[in-house]
Amino acid sequence: MVVRLEILKEDTRTRARIGKLYTPHGIIDTPVFMPVGTQATVKTMTPEELKDLGAQIILSNTYHLYLRPGHELIAEAGGLHTFMNWDRAILTDSGGFQVFSLGALRKIREEGVEFRSHIDGSCQFLSPEIATQVQIALGADIIMAFDECAPYPCTHEYAGNSLERTTRWTKRCLEALGTNEKQALFGIVQGGIYQDLRIQSAEQIVGLDLPGYAIGGLSVGEPKELMYEVLDYTVLHLPKQKPRYLMGVGSPDALIEGVMRGIDMFDCVLPTRIARNGTALTRYGKVVVRNAESARNFSPLDPTCACYACRNYSRAYIRHLLKADEILGLRLMSIHNLHFLQTMMREIREAIREERLPEYRRAFFADYGY
Amino acid sequence: MVVRLEILKEDTRTRARIGKLYTPHGIIDTPVFMPVGTQATVKTMTPEELKDLGAQIILSNTYHLYLRPGHELIAEAGGLHTFMNWDRAILTDSGGFQVFSLGALRKIREEGVEFRSHIDGSCQFLSPEIATQVQIALGADIIMAFDECAPYPCTHEYAGNSLERTTRWTKRCLEALGTNEKQALFGIVQGGIYQDLRIQSAEQIVGLDLPGYAIGGLSVGEPKELMYEVLDYTVLHLPKQKPRYLMGVGSPDALIEGVMRGIDMFDCVLPTRIARNGTALTRYGKVVVRNAESARNFSPLDPTCACYACRNYSRAYIRHLLKADEILGLRLMSIHNLHFLQTMMREIREAIREERLPEYRRAFFADYGY
Repeated sequence: MVVRLEILKEDTRTRARIGKLYTPHGIIDTPVFMPVGTQATVKTMTPEELKDLGAQIILSNTYHLYLRPGHELIAEAGGLHTFMNWDRAILTDSGGFQVFSLGALRKIREEGVEFRSHIDGSCQFLSPEIATQVQIALGADIIMAFDECAPYPCTHEYAGNSLERTTRWTKRCLEALGTNEKQALFGIVQGGIYQDLRIQSAEQIVGLDLPGYAIGGLSVGEPKELMYEVLDYTVLHLPKQKPRYLMGVGSPDALIEGVMRGIDMFDCVLPTRIARNGTALTRYGKVVVRNAESARNFSPLDPTCACYACRNYSRAYIRHLLKADEILGLRLMSIHNLHFLQTMMREIREAIREERLPEYRRAFFADYGY
Repeated sequence: MVVRLEILKEDTRTRARIGKLYTPHGIIDTPVFMPVGTQATVKTMTPEELKDLGAQIILSNTYHLYLRPGHELIAEAGGLHTFMNWDRAILTDSGGFQVFSLGALRKIREEGVEFRSHIDGSCQFLSPEIATQVQIALGADIIMAFDECAPYPCTHEYAGNSLERTTRWTKRCLEALGTNEKQALFGIVQGGIYQDLRIQSAEQIVGLDLPGYAIGGLSVGEPKELMYEVLDYTVLHLPKQKPRYLMGVGSPDALIEGVMRGIDMFDCVLPTRIARNGTALTRYGKVVVRNAESARNFSPLDPTCACYACRNYSRAYIRHLLKADEILGLRLMSIHNLHFLQTMMREIREAIREERLPEYRRAFFADYGY
């Protein structure tokens, strides 16, 4: 297998496990949070800065790169790794989620999805075959099946049709991929918030014997408790020995809850997006750095944090940079938030190793004020 | 003297010289180009990145920091060096140039200048005393006299009144500074493009026996040949043993011409500003990276350049980042352009040392297409 999971330890009291995910661009410690580099760059960051934080894999987006600069150009450059100067693992999503998010600007047919580009309004088309070809050109280690992500809320019938189409599309992706010894195709389980549909979807997708499985269509507006419920019963229908990826999740609380339910991989724009809006993640909850109370706070964002921003700059300075629209402010905030999540995932892995994950969760939630 | 220049070698064929400028925060090789950190940050850059380029001194702005976050706050933080985490030398300008640039939004009186903040429109006031107090609070190694910068073009009478006021104001700055063993006050020679007035101003300012002298009111719209002419006769009236600083100049050609006329220090927002607009400075002229011809150029911005951007990224990738409004694009362009000027100044110093500055100039202009 191009990509495979070695499970090092399973928790005795939860479904959590730690493992090593083998990819053509390195071995990844799981559970892992993947920073998002939508447009072939994790916003504000260099690859060296990502490595300093301990990032082992990043995510990039088929939808965005297909439209700009185009996958042929990236292939000419030698693939996405070379283009963006990142020699560790990359996962690309299929563009499915992005085109469905376009709402009125897209039309779904069995063949694929017609949509209008958010950049120039031009007519565009993505299908399982095209999404796969694009991802082959990009050369990511892990590529995602082109799926139909049902919205929340939606009817049982809608979610049922979506998951059936997702299965048909996943088969077409698999066919389009052919024999490929450098890239692993992960399937995506859909089915909305309906237990019968999630199980049906999981059985169909797992039936395709893929190297990994994602749970899609969550964190799209439903209450978190509902998401955890869906995870509870869906994970039971995914094979233990394959990696499990919960798409679009990255809040600290949901990372812990996801790990406890057996998830190995996560991604989310949250840490970098709220960073640029001026919100820092800390062990003691979120800090809105733009607020007036930070103006004369000459301590770091988080005195317990060892990131570059906290080692060298005060909250007052970072607030000044944000108020003055200075890019260094966005950089320091992004470094801090990504460092926070990378550190948290490392702590979670240690807690699993040392059989104290529930205790870690309790202490974390008490500090974080959740 | 808090700040003093040691001249290591004078060129035999031009007025160029190389030296060491001693400051409380390190020794600076001259001639030097100072990157501009208007708002307590050189746009997009960390201090470590500036040091990697070889930057030994940066410039920051009284006008901007007075308005935001305020000099008292920076003093509370331990001064500008601590606030922005820069342990090498800093020069602050007085705010004179900025308030005069406000045009209709300011009113000049003998006491000082009333102006409206560009941030919130509030009424503000700067005077020689206030500008000096602000710069004392910021704690820069070199602080600038509060001057009146005459526009181009302007009448002989206007330029004459401006320079006389600048002399009176410089005396008030000197008084406001008192005995200060950590900061050196540089005076500014004005006088527009009038030889008699420049000489008059130089004699008055030099009469105050300051540790360094700047030439102000140039690069404000006049033809470059006119600027060089002004330098030719003005420098003759500045003492050899003191540093000479040409304010607001930073185009590659003007740096060489300035050095040949005896200038030791330069500053300009040009390299970082055009970087953010997508223009790279290279040995072979300017490159507009946003242009379509860069789309599939998989070579570095400049194949002869050793900067971080050129060592690791293609022009095509940087163009993609710029088109996609990605901050990493602005970072890479800024690093490249500052590296270009720092490298050029090092080459200029070597050329002076080796008695081949005119030859260096000729070769540079031939390559650069000037």
